[in-house]
Amino acid sequence: MDELDIETVAEADLSEPVLVEGLPGVGHVGKLAAEHLVEELDSTLVRRVYSEHFPPQVDIDEEGVAALTCAEFHAVEGGDRDLLVLTGDHQAQDNVGHYRLASAFLDVADEFGADEVFSLGGVPTGELIEEYDVLGAAANGSLVEELEAVGVEFREDEPAGGIVGVSGLLLGLGRRREFDAACLMGETSGYLVDPKSARAVLETLEELLGFELDYESLEERADEMEDVINKIQEMEQQQSMDVPTDEDLRYIG
Amino acid sequence: MDELDIETVAEADLSEPVLVEGLPGVGHVGKLAAEHLVEELDSTLVRRVYSEHFPPQVDIDEEGVAALTCAEFHAVEGGDRDLLVLTGDHQAQDNVGHYRLASAFLDVADEFGADEVFSLGGVPTGELIEEYDVLGAAANGSLVEELEAVGVEFREDEPAGGIVGVSGLLLGLGRRREFDAACLMGETSGYLVDPKSARAVLETLEELLGFELDYESLEERADEMEDVINKIQEMEQQQSMDVPTDEDLRYIG
Amino acid sequence: MDELDIETVAEADLSEPVLVEGLPGVGHVGKLAAEHLVEELDSTLVRRVYSEHFPPQVDIDEEGVAALTCAEFHAVEGGDRDLLVLTGDHQAQDNVGHYRLASAFLDVADEFGADEVFSLGGVPTGELIEEYDVLGAAANGSLVEELEAVGVEFREDEPAGGIVGVSGLLLGLGRRREFDAACLMGETSGYLVDPKSARAVLETLEELLGFELDYESLEERADEMEDVINKIQEMEQQQSMDVPTDEDLRYIG
Amino acid sequence: MDELDIETVAEADLSEPVLVEGLPGVGHVGKLAAEHLVEELDSTLVRRVYSEHFPPQVDIDEEGVAALTCAEFHAVEGGDRDLLVLTGDHQAQDNVGHYRLASAFLDVADEFGADEVFSLGGVPTGELIEEYDVLGAAANGSLVEELEAVGVEFREDEPAGGIVGVSGLLLGLGRRREFDAACLMGETSGYLVDPKSARAVLETLEELLGFELDYESLEERADEMEDVINKIQEMEQQQSMDVPTDEDLRYIG
Repeated sequence: MDELDIETVAEADLSEPVLVEGLPGVGHVGKLAAEHLVEELDSTLVRRVYSEHFPPQVDIDEEGVAALTCAEFHAVEGGDRDLLVLTGDHQAQDNVGHYRLASAFLDVADEFGADEVFSLGGVPTGELIEEYDVLGAAANGSLVEELEAVGVEFREDEPAGGIVGVSGLLLGLGRRREFDAACLMGETSGYLVDPKSARAVLETLEELLGFELDYESLEERADEMEDVINKIQEMEQQQSMDVPTDEDLRYIG
Repeated sequence: MDELDIETVAEADLSEPVLVEGLPGVGHVGKLAAEHLVEELDSTLVRRVYSEHFPPQVDIDEEGVAALTCAEFHAVEGGDRDLLVLTGDHQAQDNVGHYRLASAFLDVADEFGADEVFSLGGVPTGELIEEYDVLGAAANGSLVEELEAVGVEFREDEPAGGIVGVSGLLLGLGRRREFDAACLMGETSGYLVDPKSARAVLETLEELLGFELDYESLEERADEMEDVINKIQEMEQQQSMDVPTDEDLRYIG
Repeated sequence: MDELDIETVAEADLSEPVLVEGLPGVGHVGKLAAEHLVEELDSTLVRRVYSEHFPPQVDIDEEGVAALTCAEFHAVEGGDRDLLVLTGDHQAQDNVGHYRLASAFLDVADEFGADEVFSLGGVPTGELIEEYDVLGAAANGSLVEELEAVGVEFREDEPAGGIVGVSGLLLGLGRRREFDAACLMGETSGYLVDPKSARAVLETLEELLGFELDYESLEERADEMEDVINKIQEMEQQQSMDVPTDEDLRYIG
Repeated sequence: MDELDIETVAEADLSEPVLVEGLPGVGHVGKLAAEHLVEELDSTLVRRVYSEHFPPQVDIDEEGVAALTCAEFHAVEGGDRDLLVLTGDHQAQDNVGHYRLASAFLDVADEFGADEVFSLGGVPTGELIEEYDVLGAAANGSLVEELEAVGVEFREDEPAGGIVGVSGLLLGLGRRREFDAACLMGETSGYLVDPKSARAVLETLEELLGFELDYESLEERADEMEDVINKIQEMEQQQSMDVPTDEDLRYIG
């Protein structure tokens, strides 16, 4: 295998598609969103990207069949615009690999005639979220305006420290190659997989690209996560009842 | 030295051999199994693979003679099928190295006309094992059936997180190069070198490939490990007798 | 993108300029100093250097527009000598990358006809500084004399362990390529961003290169840091008053 | 600069010299020994080896002049055999770099007509040493005999885990390139720089290669280390006198 190996799984005739990336990251927001797009809309797996910069690993399906870990491009139809959706289980494992893989992903986008990129991710807030805002960053000022028009927020100095990893590089390298690239980041606590944040990001994309999604399966995952959170909170309460705190003692006293 | 350097030690005329890999990993199950094969059957060292991705190290034999660390291929005869057995003291030390070495190993397999691969390893259970099951993963569905027929278990979502390292890559890269590749993983606690798990894996291989092994030396190592475990348990008991626990105190009280 | 990618932003006709480097390091002394030079004097951004050895990251400006992280060269006029000032938010992320980037920086210096290099940095003392000395290291003995003449100190065995990173390499690689290279290091505690140390370094440069700077903005940042230090000290005092120490108890007793 | 850059400092006409390597390692035994050879015998610096695999660093001499970190080859005359002595302040910083540098070192040895290699190092025992034995490892059995004849010890399974780093690779790669290579390892506690262990290694080399050294300067360093050890032991005793231990209490009781 070469450093990068792009396997053609199927061909697809997309008309000026938009590249939508959702690889693992904060709260798995981008990954959840991209996978939901692929599941809910009419999609075809078109390319697999293997790389020495991915972990040396096979993933095993429910039949016990193993396949080398890779990133996948799906041709997705169903809205005003065709989509080319990038999903997978891993980002690059090293600094140089991040650059090489992001470049390869843009090559695939080029091949399919895409000149617009949305990379999806989460931005950690450190606290549980009530209302899920979507933050943005873009390759140019006119894109900023376009995104603000559908409610995306641009906040000075956020995310602090810039955007790291594939989402950042698709934006940074994309800009240098004259893609109209933007990053949509759902607010998320940062502690848990966050389907609600993924939904907020997808609803923004719906407005931008004119498609419609059913959110039932994502809501189910959100409910499951809610149950997990509730159980954790109950356990914490239980503990705080067993062990009297300073406050309890003062009250009793 | 180049990045990879394959030394021809001897030639061997093998008829459609099966590549069997056993490099260090969980419980050293694969390594113990592969070394036992080489010791018990009629075997010839045929290739050494040196690499910059192995640690910068020499190993020293009992005469004080040092040799650069490497992986070794042995031509092994003695069953229905000829074997090409891969052993060694190290896996690659870096991500890219894992891919490069696994590719080189498949090149050697190719050279000897092998088109079937069994990578051997352990799967950690976190607890001491009573009955040693062998789990499987395979490059295609018909191999899954073949393995199930000799008692290999395929469990959904196991091993969680896929198979990492050389065993995983021989399966993943092997599949891409159209090898019939499978991984046999003996259950093992994960805490200790586990000759019993190695035996379980080898007994599965015996059925699959039609050879017969004597297990005396492996049993001796298993007995030694048993002694180690017993000593650890005694020491723990001793300690718990010396230092009264909360429970003891309550009982006394 | 290649391993290194040098973007021409503008041309500038500099006459035998001096390369002045100030990338992040101890106390951010070099970075603060170089940025102050660019802000206070008449400067033009001339080159951007992108590299796979920088972190995989975009930085976002106050308008929400993202750009791939890079190092920047500025043509700076305003003194006896023209300057080529190198600034940026990151050093290389890996060992080999440090060498590759420093070589590329010297290539750019060459291109602009520079044959003299000052790399700026901080040297950690581990304690708060009253009087900010500037330590030096140079590529040859005559430079040592020149620097001592303007008050730069050369102390045996300092900095202990040599100079690591881009500042060290510009000196070391620069010497091998026959640049007149020196490193100016402001003393700094090493715990905080240190604008006062940056000023000490800049005042040395003023004498060496014959330009004049206004220090108002740097003084403001120094005052801000002073406030931070005072607050930390107050908090520490507060804590030591709330919680009686052993000593207090003895005294009370 | 390339990945490796060999600078010719001077030429020397050596007759079948022996390569002697002493780069930093356990107890700095090899480094101390090689530097002592260079200082005590008639030596000329002949080559400098620069590399991207060394740390990105300059070292500064007592005049404040900085030079890029490198390894140095010295032509050394003064015994029955000419020597080519390799010294320096660093080993490679990464796995692949270890292989590349060791190969380059053997290339230089080749260039000077050397076909014998002694790599010098320390072997950690974990306790203070009374009598400094020298352990050996060699590229072939006849070298083992030769070394045993001058008192070098070969102990089964020592050093456990083989020999790692440049000393190991010069032996391992050297053997593959048909050098007569051996490693001499002085026993050392492993906790401190150990001039006495370096002397033990050098005395072995004296017998093997027929030269004579004065050990005064090495003895002085050994005395300094002795003082350090004594001070540490005094401080420990002091502490154990201040704070009564369980044992003291029982005795008092």
